[in-house]
Amino acid sequence: MLEFAEVQAAARRIAGHAHRTPILTSQTLNERLGCEVFLKAENFQRMGAFKFRGGYNAIAALSPEVRARGVVAFSSGNHAQAVALAARLHGIAATIVMPNDAPVLKIDATRGYGASVVLFDRYTEDRVAIGTRIASEKGATLIPPFDYLPVMAGQGTCGLEIAEELPNLDALIVCTGGGGFLSGCTVAMKALQPNVKCYGAEPQAGNDVQQSLEKGEIVSIAVPKTICDGQQTQAVGVHPFAVIRSQVAGVLTASDAAVLDAMRFAFERMKIVLEPSGACALAALTVNREAFVGKRVAVTLSGGNIDLARFVALTQHTSQH
Amino acid sequence: MLEFAEVQAAARRIAGHAHRTPILTSQTLNERLGCEVFLKAENFQRMGAFKFRGGYNAIAALSPEVRARGVVAFSSGNHAQAVALAARLHGIAATIVMPNDAPVLKIDATRGYGASVVLFDRYTEDRVAIGTRIASEKGATLIPPFDYLPVMAGQGTCGLEIAEELPNLDALIVCTGGGGFLSGCTVAMKALQPNVKCYGAEPQAGNDVQQSLEKGEIVSIAVPKTICDGQQTQAVGVHPFAVIRSQVAGVLTASDAAVLDAMRFAFERMKIVLEPSGACALAALTVNREAFVGKRVAVTLSGGNIDLARFVALTQHTSQH
Repeated sequence: MLEFAEVQAAARRIAGHAHRTPILTSQTLNERLGCEVFLKAENFQRMGAFKFRGGYNAIAALSPEVRARGVVAFSSGNHAQAVALAARLHGIAATIVMPNDAPVLKIDATRGYGASVVLFDRYTEDRVAIGTRIASEKGATLIPPFDYLPVMAGQGTCGLEIAEELPNLDALIVCTGGGGFLSGCTVAMKALQPNVKCYGAEPQAGNDVQQSLEKGEIVSIAVPKTICDGQQTQAVGVHPFAVIRSQVAGVLTASDAAVLDAMRFAFERMKIVLEPSGACALAALTVNREAFVGKRVAVTLSGGNIDLARFVALTQHTSQH
Repeated sequence: MLEFAEVQAAARRIAGHAHRTPILTSQTLNERLGCEVFLKAENFQRMGAFKFRGGYNAIAALSPEVRARGVVAFSSGNHAQAVALAARLHGIAATIVMPNDAPVLKIDATRGYGASVVLFDRYTEDRVAIGTRIASEKGATLIPPFDYLPVMAGQGTCGLEIAEELPNLDALIVCTGGGGFLSGCTVAMKALQPNVKCYGAEPQAGNDVQQSLEKGEIVSIAVPKTICDGQQTQAVGVHPFAVIRSQVAGVLTASDAAVLDAMRFAFERMKIVLEPSGACALAALTVNREAFVGKRVAVTLSGGNIDLARFVALTQHTSQH
């Protein structure tokens, strides 16, 4: 089980390397939702998402000899860029295994951080096997995206900052895919403010964590169809679930339409850019606002990595409905 | 001539009412431009632009008896909303004179702040005459958008915050339309850091301040064709020009295409939303970067009030070229 001391150690490791992101508020939002909302803007984190915290901590926690042999990750998303950038900052090599149909911009960004990118065909090849083989050939360390205590501890530093800066919260809502972010933030929040209710937020079409929490065991689902590409995981991780099952109050969901509304609100009223998964927790609060009337609620805005063309395509698409 | 003491007094008046906006940095931007850039994010100011500072200060500076009779402004843009919101916060009435072809969103936003909106036909009617008549009928005070010392002093508090937080600057670049923002910020900067070179930034198509500075007298131009709708003024104000002529080092310009590039960079790399005029100073620095290599440069991001549909239309339009 992830311990709070590991989150505290992660906070010391990332200090001066990760940004301490701002907490934003909006009078308009408070009036609309009937509660006091605090938005933790991880879209302003380095490389544009909270994932940098976990990637950096995982690499920093390695012994110098192990670290020197480099790291490997498989990811088509923010974890890839997080590991790539964290490796560069440590002066070590990173190999990222990405599907050959990943957006060119993401492949380029990962290469831009100095990583070697190995492409694979996701219909015929197994990325885990490829990543494991590369790691064993190079003696490099595989950094999993969520089911790994150092990554969970790193993500938890976001919850630690929230808990330190905002006294007397009633609730915390954290978007969840594999559960690393939700479990890490929950451990930190419960350590400092034990009475705060911690909730996950998932896309409605991919509510496996909600199902798992209700059933009391990990439920696997087919790859969900949702615009929230950071949350298309099929099952929560074992280590995250140990925390979630024992300390998380519930999982809220939001439709893709609600996520788009939250992205538009963030754009027009708050002047910030959120990727779909980055708006999921805000959307989930909006949809479930009756449960939070009069409360002090912290919400994670987990990332802002979306190129303008996709942002336009998504928001234009729905406005035709 | 605007005195620094007036900017200091404005800072005391707006404290706790206006946001002290963050100063953002980007490693990517610094690498691209070859200088150290500090971006003052006034898009996060209340109502989405620096104009709130001037509007609030102008109303706060009135005597209680005068203030109680309300205020009037004519503006189709951010000044209207600034005066409307500042009036509401003071519990007084505001009448805003707006063209009847102004974007519905802006009219609605102004009404949303509790102001009475009086529409006029800008091809057949004179907004100054209408505003003056309403002010005299109601005994209300007209709050001009830039050629007015209390507004200039309020806008100058942005420069004061920059000068206080960033020691040893080499340059400050402030977008300019009527000159209130540029002159206010320049007075504050020169008072605290006399060696900093202060520059204005204008759209290339509407460079009347540049022409005025070069000629040593105010030059009037036709309404410029530019996407920078906050800078379509035809002539700089008399009071701002007194400061600009004596203390501003030069005026830089940027094409609309360069402004759109800056908006895209802000969106994709910094995860923030800028309206065209809000990106003008960053665009002007980018275009003129050779002059700033190795320097520490502060740049104002003056506002973020652009609806998603217009943002999409602007950015899509150019990507077809």
